[in-house]
Amino acid sequence: MAFLPRITSPADVRGLRPAQLDELAREVRRFLVASVSRTGGHLGPNLGVVELTLALHRVFESPRDTMVFDTGHQSYVHKILTGRTDFSELRQRGGLSGYPSREESEHDVVENSHASTALSWADGIAKAHALSGADRHVVAVIGDGALTGGMAWEALNNIAAGQDRRLVVVVNDNGRSYDPTIGGLAHHLDTLRTTRGYENFLAWGKRTLRRSGPPGRFAYGALHGLKKGIKDVVAPQGMFEDLGIKYIGPVDGHDVVAVEQALRRAKAFGGPVIVHVITEKGRGYVPAEQDVADRFHAVGRIHPETGLPVAPSRFGWTSVFADEMVKVGRRRPDVVAITAAMLQPVGLAPFAAEFPGRTFDVGIAEQHAVTSAAGMAFAGLHPVVAVYATFLNRAFDQVLMDVALHKAGVTFVLDRAGITGDDGASHNGMWDMALLRLVPGLHLAAPRDEPTLREALRSALDVDDAPSVVRYPKGPLPEAVEALEQLDGVDVLAREGSTGPSVLVVGVGPMAHVAIEVARIVGQEGVSATAVDPRWVLPVPSSLVKLAGEHERVVVIEDGLVEGGVGALLAQRCGEAGIGVPVQPFGIPAVFLDHASRAQIIEDLRLRAEDVARDVLRSAGHGRQGT
Amino acid sequence: MAFLPRITSPADVRGLRPAQLDELAREVRRFLVASVSRTGGHLGPNLGVVELTLALHRVFESPRDTMVFDTGHQSYVHKILTGRTDFSELRQRGGLSGYPSREESEHDVVENSHASTALSWADGIAKAHALSGADRHVVAVIGDGALTGGMAWEALNNIAAGQDRRLVVVVNDNGRSYDPTIGGLAHHLDTLRTTRGYENFLAWGKRTLRRSGPPGRFAYGALHGLKKGIKDVVAPQGMFEDLGIKYIGPVDGHDVVAVEQALRRAKAFGGPVIVHVITEKGRGYVPAEQDVADRFHAVGRIHPETGLPVAPSRFGWTSVFADEMVKVGRRRPDVVAITAAMLQPVGLAPFAAEFPGRTFDVGIAEQHAVTSAAGMAFAGLHPVVAVYATFLNRAFDQVLMDVALHKAGVTFVLDRAGITGDDGASHNGMWDMALLRLVPGLHLAAPRDEPTLREALRSALDVDDAPSVVRYPKGPLPEAVEALEQLDGVDVLAREGSTGPSVLVVGVGPMAHVAIEVARIVGQEGVSATAVDPRWVLPVPSSLVKLAGEHERVVVIEDGLVEGGVGALLAQRCGEAGIGVPVQPFGIPAVFLDHASRAQIIEDLRLRAEDVARDVLRSAGHGRQGT
Repeated sequence: MAFLPRITSPADVRGLRPAQLDELAREVRRFLVASVSRTGGHLGPNLGVVELTLALHRVFESPRDTMVFDTGHQSYVHKILTGRTDFSELRQRGGLSGYPSREESEHDVVENSHASTALSWADGIAKAHALSGADRHVVAVIGDGALTGGMAWEALNNIAAGQDRRLVVVVNDNGRSYDPTIGGLAHHLDTLRTTRGYENFLAWGKRTLRRSGPPGRFAYGALHGLKKGIKDVVAPQGMFEDLGIKYIGPVDGHDVVAVEQALRRAKAFGGPVIVHVITEKGRGYVPAEQDVADRFHAVGRIHPETGLPVAPSRFGWTSVFADEMVKVGRRRPDVVAITAAMLQPVGLAPFAAEFPGRTFDVGIAEQHAVTSAAGMAFAGLHPVVAVYATFLNRAFDQVLMDVALHKAGVTFVLDRAGITGDDGASHNGMWDMALLRLVPGLHLAAPRDEPTLREALRSALDVDDAPSVVRYPKGPLPEAVEALEQLDGVDVLAREGSTGPSVLVVGVGPMAHVAIEVARIVGQEGVSATAVDPRWVLPVPSSLVKLAGEHERVVVIEDGLVEGGVGALLAQRCGEAGIGVPVQPFGIPAVFLDHASRAQIIEDLRLRAEDVARDVLRSAGHGRQGT
Repeated sequence: MAFLPRITSPADVRGLRPAQLDELAREVRRFLVASVSRTGGHLGPNLGVVELTLALHRVFESPRDTMVFDTGHQSYVHKILTGRTDFSELRQRGGLSGYPSREESEHDVVENSHASTALSWADGIAKAHALSGADRHVVAVIGDGALTGGMAWEALNNIAAGQDRRLVVVVNDNGRSYDPTIGGLAHHLDTLRTTRGYENFLAWGKRTLRRSGPPGRFAYGALHGLKKGIKDVVAPQGMFEDLGIKYIGPVDGHDVVAVEQALRRAKAFGGPVIVHVITEKGRGYVPAEQDVADRFHAVGRIHPETGLPVAPSRFGWTSVFADEMVKVGRRRPDVVAITAAMLQPVGLAPFAAEFPGRTFDVGIAEQHAVTSAAGMAFAGLHPVVAVYATFLNRAFDQVLMDVALHKAGVTFVLDRAGITGDDGASHNGMWDMALLRLVPGLHLAAPRDEPTLREALRSALDVDDAPSVVRYPKGPLPEAVEALEQLDGVDVLAREGSTGPSVLVVGVGPMAHVAIEVARIVGQEGVSATAVDPRWVLPVPSSLVKLAGEHERVVVIEDGLVEGGVGALLAQRCGEAGIGVPVQPFGIPAVFLDHASRAQIIEDLRLRAEDVARDVLRSAGHGRQGT
């Protein structure tokens, strides 16, 4: 490596000669493949923005000029160029975050990894600079996929209104988010891309006419005069210009000199500008370029040469859902699937393959996913909206006001619910249950294993007058556990100990396995413990309230916000029923969790069986002293 | 009235001759002014859509064809034409809803009155029809203001992707929502409007050439051939066509025959079409046409001839906020104001008048309002985001992930919090506290009167590392009540009775006045009661937890969701602190409330002082029996 080791700050990038940049780009790519193949991470997106990020740091002066990266997982190159080259513990505790992090660097601004926010951040920052008269630029980098999100539109509409603000929007157009970008915007960007044909045509004209000598000069002038006219024929005036935002592009995003020129023009303009850059996700790494699914959007550990995973994928929950959806789809023609640019990651690809006409990818547009589902339910279908749990936060109002208020039979399947860990604070799906309990009439199931997941989905699809939700975590699928018996829908999973104070240990979803273990441990210490899994936790089953009343103490373990979660709700229901039993919830406190492994976070939060058991035993001891 | 009395269903509208429609439109307007001036309601928007609604019901066959009205307050004319003409109890219990209502009519579909949802509903319904092969159309009517909302963009992007679906989007372009529409979209619609110049030019050409006799025919043909070219010069190709959606317009929305023709063309097209209709809010009613503020968007009872209010406006809370904002603005140059198309209704007009450069109306775009505020805070400003409480639900994810995660000092002012009543289920601001308690680090104040509102706003502006919220209700401002004393920030408002079991009565916000009254009533019955107002309820003050522990019983009265509200949270905190005192919350249950007056709903929910006092006395009685 000739150049990369000498880069410790953006100033070093600015110090290079243009001819040296291609080699630096190659080195950055080699570094990315070598590092990320060892740790896992977002490989494809970063391979696509190497030249773009070089050009950004040559044209703008971070942190004086502010750079905002939408979704943030495309910031690895930015990290490298701002002096962060130890990727050995990427996304691990103590190592670099997989997203921008203010704690890591003054060059990082936005840590939120939910899509489509960057333009709003940039608009706010640019407004503040305009007020203070500061001579500083704001650059937002946003993918074409993220432009399908409603927030991006709201921001564009406002950016257009501020012609005095120094704001550059770089549209990183690789034609996809996880999946290929869909809809009218994608169609429009396609059209803009064809203007490369127009540029080529002009270049061809120049060459031809020059070759034809002096008379050609006139013809060239005429041709040039026709430029505007031809442009309007070859490519329609762009949507961005319709809105009143200057448009530069399209630019080949892997030609670092061309990108740099475009950015300099944008910087000099003095008002809001869109720079449309065409890039290739996974660029320069053959296994990624050849991957039709998602171009190595995010990978686990892989062999750097082949791109093959080191360990087999363990998305067991997702696969079970994928399989059950196809089975349900065959039986019920009214069932349709909706997702928000995540067909593959949420497991809808098999359903889409068999029922393409009944599968709707709406783009990064959770609000539309939810409300269009309400419309479909009104017209007789039963939609299944499958998204990551954390992204449903985006559509709370629509779940409430479009689905629940209208008694629409819509099923939500929330993948990656609970602690996800390595993606950091904004990917944890820990708010869903506390939020959804506020929605009148909503039913929510948290299955504990494969059979209960299949059963939960089928039951949810039978709810035709209210929203129903099935939520499950990221990570491997635990072994199935059969119930010893069922009490009005509550599965009794273990009965341990026979003497001493009686404890009811409620496990929500996969925490049922922890509940069994807690019962076992305290049972060995002579505490009579029953581990149960209610499976459907919203509304709280009255049988669970009754069961709670038959015990001296109740413990609820959940992979969700303890603040206002299922345990808190059970306590409230017990209180309303005049049942005085103490209910202690164990879950996630209302704080933002730093990136770390799921296991580490569970240990920190004292959610392991031994932690909960220790607490139960301590309280039981107190109980004995008290009597 | 010659025609209106004979209209009992859309078929009657279709039976009229075109020449009769103008007279019917006049009668509908007279009816609207006469009725709404007696009851109050959304007058301006409905006066603007009289001809449009007539044309809709002539061209489409509801309910076979589905009509979706965005925000719904523009559906009065639709109600009249579908047989609902008893407006005597509009928005009152037992009377017509001010919005579409499925209970009222099979012609009504969407009851949610939050903006920008109609296109998503329509897309979902059209998708279902396309799947079933039903020969039915879906028509969505959406204002230009609502098009600035992100959901509308998400929907347009998807509508463009479904060229086989029979979906007509009517853009009702009156240049405003509450306030004039802002941003790039407004600019673009302006541009499109100028094509009326182009249509006029063509018409002039036709007339001129016809007059010039036979040779003119050739010229007319040539002119016609040039049509496309001229069009591209006079009006740029529209954004909607860039997205791949056919565009028809602009059409004069008060020329019922022209609108009908445009809608028939759209219906015949067979794919998604935008029909751009230009209307005038308040049309045909002089006081509304002359009102520069909001063209009589929503009125109380008014004198029909003059348009002057019968009773003086009672938005006392809003006025106090308006006044304090100006004072704060003079002292602190870092304070800026943001609103989402509601400058007047939330009381920001005086601030905007004095500090126009520090006021940002972002359009109906709550998500952008919140995230751009985070950007401004990052760049050193302290933004105040003022919206109706119910609309903040739209931006929960942004409050959480952009403001709170980034420790941004942004203040939210939530007007119309709690029960609003007559606007129906989706206008009640009852979710805010239960939602916002899930946001780490957030501070929330619920002032009880003018001095505490002023103080709360000033204190909120001193929080520079977390979101802060001030929430207050709709309705008249109660008399100020001074505290007897302050205990660590908790105001003690009344101490009643001196013997008997001791009850702590906590009143949240204006419910403090109810708490005082409860204390008085139970005090007369010999129960020792203390009424307190913590003012800041999130996070729960530790002094309040301590105070709770010094009583035998705690009652919390709040104008918000009882499910997971402040009372429930106080109970949880007491439990965590090992304080065994029973805490009983009184508030709004997690159900959707039908439209009725605020007073009626409060009575139904048993939130009046006498209701709460009766309950306290009953429990106190039990308590005495128990000891």
